Amino acid sequence: MALRDAKAGVRNEAGIEAVSGILKQRFGERFQTGRAFRAQHAHTTTYIPTQLPDGVLFAETADDVKTVVRACADHKVPVIGFGTGSSLEGQVNAPNGGISIDFSRMNRVLEVNPEDLDCTVEPGVTREALNTHLRDTGLFFPIDPGANASIGGMTSTRASGTNAVRYGTMKDNVLAVTAVTASGEEIRTARRARKSSAGYDLTRLFVGAEGTLGILTSVTLRLHGIPQKIAGGVCAFPSVKAACDAVIMTIQMGIPVARIELVDALQMRASIAYANLPYEESPALFLEFHGTDETVELQSAAFAEIAAECGGGEFRFTASPEERTKLWKARHDAYWSVRALAPGLAVLSTDVCVPISRLADCVAETQADIEANGLLAPIVGHAGDGNFHVQLLFDDKSAAGIATAEEFVARLNARALAMDGTCTGEHGIGQGKMAFLEQELGGTVDLMRQIKRSLDPDNILNPGKIFHLG
Amino acid sequence: MALRDAKAGVRNEAGIEAVSGILKQRFGERFQTGRAFRAQHAHTTTYIPTQLPDGVLFAETADDVKTVVRACADHKVPVIGFGTGSSLEGQVNAPNGGISIDFSRMNRVLEVNPEDLDCTVEPGVTREALNTHLRDTGLFFPIDPGANASIGGMTSTRASGTNAVRYGTMKDNVLAVTAVTASGEEIRTARRARKSSAGYDLTRLFVGAEGTLGILTSVTLRLHGIPQKIAGGVCAFPSVKAACDAVIMTIQMGIPVARIELVDALQMRASIAYANLPYEESPALFLEFHGTDETVELQSAAFAEIAAECGGGEFRFTASPEERTKLWKARHDAYWSVRALAPGLAVLSTDVCVPISRLADCVAETQADIEANGLLAPIVGHAGDGNFHVQLLFDDKSAAGIATAEEFVARLNARALAMDGTCTGEHGIGQGKMAFLEQELGGTVDLMRQIKRSLDPDNILNPGKIFHLG
Repeated sequence: MALRDAKAGVRNEAGIEAVSGILKQRFGERFQTGRAFRAQHAHTTTYIPTQLPDGVLFAETADDVKTVVRACADHKVPVIGFGTGSSLEGQVNAPNGGISIDFSRMNRVLEVNPEDLDCTVEPGVTREALNTHLRDTGLFFPIDPGANASIGGMTSTRASGTNAVRYGTMKDNVLAVTAVTASGEEIRTARRARKSSAGYDLTRLFVGAEGTLGILTSVTLRLHGIPQKIAGGVCAFPSVKAACDAVIMTIQMGIPVARIELVDALQMRASIAYANLPYEESPALFLEFHGTDETVELQSAAFAEIAAECGGGEFRFTASPEERTKLWKARHDAYWSVRALAPGLAVLSTDVCVPISRLADCVAETQADIEANGLLAPIVGHAGDGNFHVQLLFDDKSAAGIATAEEFVARLNARALAMDGTCTGEHGIGQGKMAFLEQELGGTVDLMRQIKRSLDPDNILNPGKIFHLG
Repeated sequence: MALRDAKAGVRNEAGIEAVSGILKQRFGERFQTGRAFRAQHAHTTTYIPTQLPDGVLFAETADDVKTVVRACADHKVPVIGFGTGSSLEGQVNAPNGGISIDFSRMNRVLEVNPEDLDCTVEPGVTREALNTHLRDTGLFFPIDPGANASIGGMTSTRASGTNAVRYGTMKDNVLAVTAVTASGEEIRTARRARKSSAGYDLTRLFVGAEGTLGILTSVTLRLHGIPQKIAGGVCAFPSVKAACDAVIMTIQMGIPVARIELVDALQMRASIAYANLPYEESPALFLEFHGTDETVELQSAAFAEIAAECGGGEFRFTASPEERTKLWKARHDAYWSVRALAPGLAVLSTDVCVPISRLADCVAETQADIEANGLLAPIVGHAGDGNFHVQLLFDDKSAAGIATAEEFVARLNARALAMDGTCTGEHGIGQGKMAFLEQELGGTVDLMRQIKRSLDPDNILNPGKIFHLG
C-alpha cells in the first residue's frame, strides 16, 4: 500500500556502497546491514509503507555520530536518527535509503544539576529511564507522550502528551541541544541559563525539526520538583460539549490542572470492556492535580464546582497511588483497548489541535462524520490544549479501506484548519502530513525549505520528511 | 564615543535616494526625512552612538509595510522596525542608513478571544495599552520588561522581566506572528492552536530575531486570567548569598511565585533615598504571589518559612493595591534612583543570566569586582531566573570612563559565561554584544549567519545587528 505522501526517492547507489564500506571497516559489528536489522529501523507504528535504510550504525559517542555524518556528507548519502521507533508519521523511514544511526547505546545521563532543576542526557535515554535515574533527587521529567520514547526522538518531534497543559511541551522543556550538522561539526545551541536573548533561538529550531537540520548528540532538559501530593479522578459528562465547557472554565479560572483528558463515550466503552473499569459509558474527563495537601484539595473542589455547573456527574478524587495508576493505565491503554474492539483492523491515530473554544465543535462534527460514514473511531484528547486523537479502525488490507481512512483524515484536518487549528499537535509531519502542512501554512513552508537548504545543501539529513524540496 | 561593536557600515547612497523618492511620492507627510524625526528614531537608552536612518515611515497597515520593504528590497536599502525605542543595545540604530518603519500608528488590538486566552495585536500596541484594552475581560498580558515597550519590540528582543519566573518570556507567550520577509511577502508562522508540531518552529525563530529576518505586522499572544488575589512583600536578608539560597529553595519547592526580585544593599540605599521607603539598607527580595485567598496565603507562609531558614528577616505581605503599587514602583524606579545617586554620570544596564545555583557566586564576585575597582553600581535581579542587572554609573564624557565601563562589562560577561550562563537574559545582542555572542556560542553563530543569508540574501533587514556577516 502506498498511502499519502510516502514517495520513494532517488537512491545514490555508489555513495551508499562507499559509505557502507567505510563504516564496516571503521565500526565492525557495530555497523549492521542485515535485512532484519534494517527492517527493525524502518519500523513505523502506522500504515505508512516501510522504507529500509541500507545499514544501521549503533553509535556509542558523539564522535561516532560525527564520523557517520562526515562519511555521509562526503558521499551525499542520507543519514537518519533512530531512538525507539515510536514515531507515528514515518519519521524514521528511509525513502532514499542511507544510514540509520541507532541511539540505544547512547543512553547515559551525563549530568544532573538538582539546584538548577536541569539535566543533560544522551539522545537514547528514554523518558522512563530518565525518571528512574532521577528517583532520589526529588525531581522528575514530566513530558509523557504515552510511549516510552527516547529524549532525542521526543525532542525531534516536539512531543508533548497528557500533562503538557501544566508543564508545556518539549519546546518548553529543552534548554539546549548539541547536534552534528550536515557538515559534520558539532554545535551547541545555548548555555544552561533558564532564559537567554542571545541571537536566534536555535534550540527551538532543532526541537521539532525531525532530524532534518542536525543529528542530536545531547539534550539539556528542565526538570520539575515531584509534587508533594498528586491526586486524580474521573468525572462523567452528559455530552462532549458539556465536558469541553468544563475544560474551558477550568483553564480560564487558572486552575493549574496537571492533566485534563477527554474520553468520548465510545472510548469509555472500549476501555471498560478492555480493563473491566467501574465507570459509566459516557463522555468523561480524566484529571490529575499536583501540589500540596491543601492546594490539591482546593483545586479539586474548584473543579468539582465547575463540573457540577456544566452538568457533570459527581467528581471523586483519590490520592491512592494504586487507584491513580489504574486510572492512568486505562487512559494509556486506550490504543490497545481500541485494537481489541475489532482485532482484524488496523488503528490510525490522528492528531489535530484547535483553539480550545472550538474543541467541542471539532469533536462533535468529527463524531457526526464518523457516524455518517459508518466508521468505528473512539476519541481521546488532551483537552486542556485543544488536542485530540481519533483512533480510527480501518482495513489496511484493502484499497477501499485505505481510501476510507485517507478521506476521513483529509476531512478531519480540513475541519481543524478551518477552526484555526493545526494538523498536528504533537506527532509531527514526517511523511504522512506533508500535504496538510502546505494547507496549514501555505507559502510559509518555503521559508522552512530555505532554512533547510542553507543548513543542509545536499539534503542528507533525514530527506523526504516535513516537506519535499524539489 | 565609539563603544564596543557599533561600527558604521557602507551606505548605498543611490538606493537610499531612490527609495526616499518612492516613499515621499507614495506616502507624502507619512514619510519624514527631517533630522529631528530621524534622530528620534535612532534614539538609544545607552551610550551606543546614535546612527540615524535616512527617513521614517509611519506605517498604518501591513500593506504599508509590504510597500516599504519591497521598495527597500528593489534598491537594496536597509529597513528597520521601530516600536517605542526602549531597546538597550542599539537595536534601532541604522549603521548603514536606510528606512525606519515607525509602528506607533499600527496600534490596534485586532482580535481578543477570551475563551481561548489569546489575542492578536499590531506591533505598535504597547503592553500597557493592551492591558488597558483587556481590562473588562478578566484577562491580562503578564510580560513586563519595565518600560512601556511595544509588543513588536518585545517580541523582537525576546523580552521578559519581573514575572517571567511564573509566566515565562516572550518565547513562551507568542503563539504566532505575521511578518513581511525580505522579498516583501507577508507570511504567518502558525495557526492559533496552543501547541503544534507542524514543521520548523518559525514563531520562535522570529521571536528574538531583532527584526533581522522579517518585519512583524502582527503578533498573536497568550493571555492569562487576572488572579483573584495578588499579594506581595519585601524580605530583608543578611547577605546576597542568603537571599539567593531562599530563591533556590523557593523554586525547588515549586512555590509558584509570580515575582521574586533580588535587590542588593546599595540598590536598597538608592531606592530608600529616592522614594523615602520604610525598608532596611540590606539585601532584600521583593515578592509577589498570584492565586486565590487561600493559595496566596499558603504560598506566602511557605516562603516565610524558607526565608526564616535562610536567616531572612520577618516577611510581611500585603494585598493592599496601594501598598503593592508603591512596592513595585520602587522596584521599577530602580534606574531613576540610581541616576539620582550621581546626577553627572551615565547609567549602563548589564544583563547576564546564569544557572540559579551560581547566582549568589556571580553576584558576590561582581560586587567584589565593583568594590576593587572603586565603581558605583547597584544590582537588581530577576532572581528566580538567575538574571541580574548591574546599573553601572560611569562617566560617558571621558575616554577613561568609557574604558572602565567596557572593561567591567567584559569581565562580567566572561564571569557569567564561565558559569554556563549567557551575556543577555532579556535585552538581546543588538550592536552592543556581538563580541560576547561569539564568546558564548562560538561556531554556532555561523548557523545563524547561514539562516540570515538564506532568508535575507541582500542583508536589508536591520543589518549590523546580532552578528556581522563578514
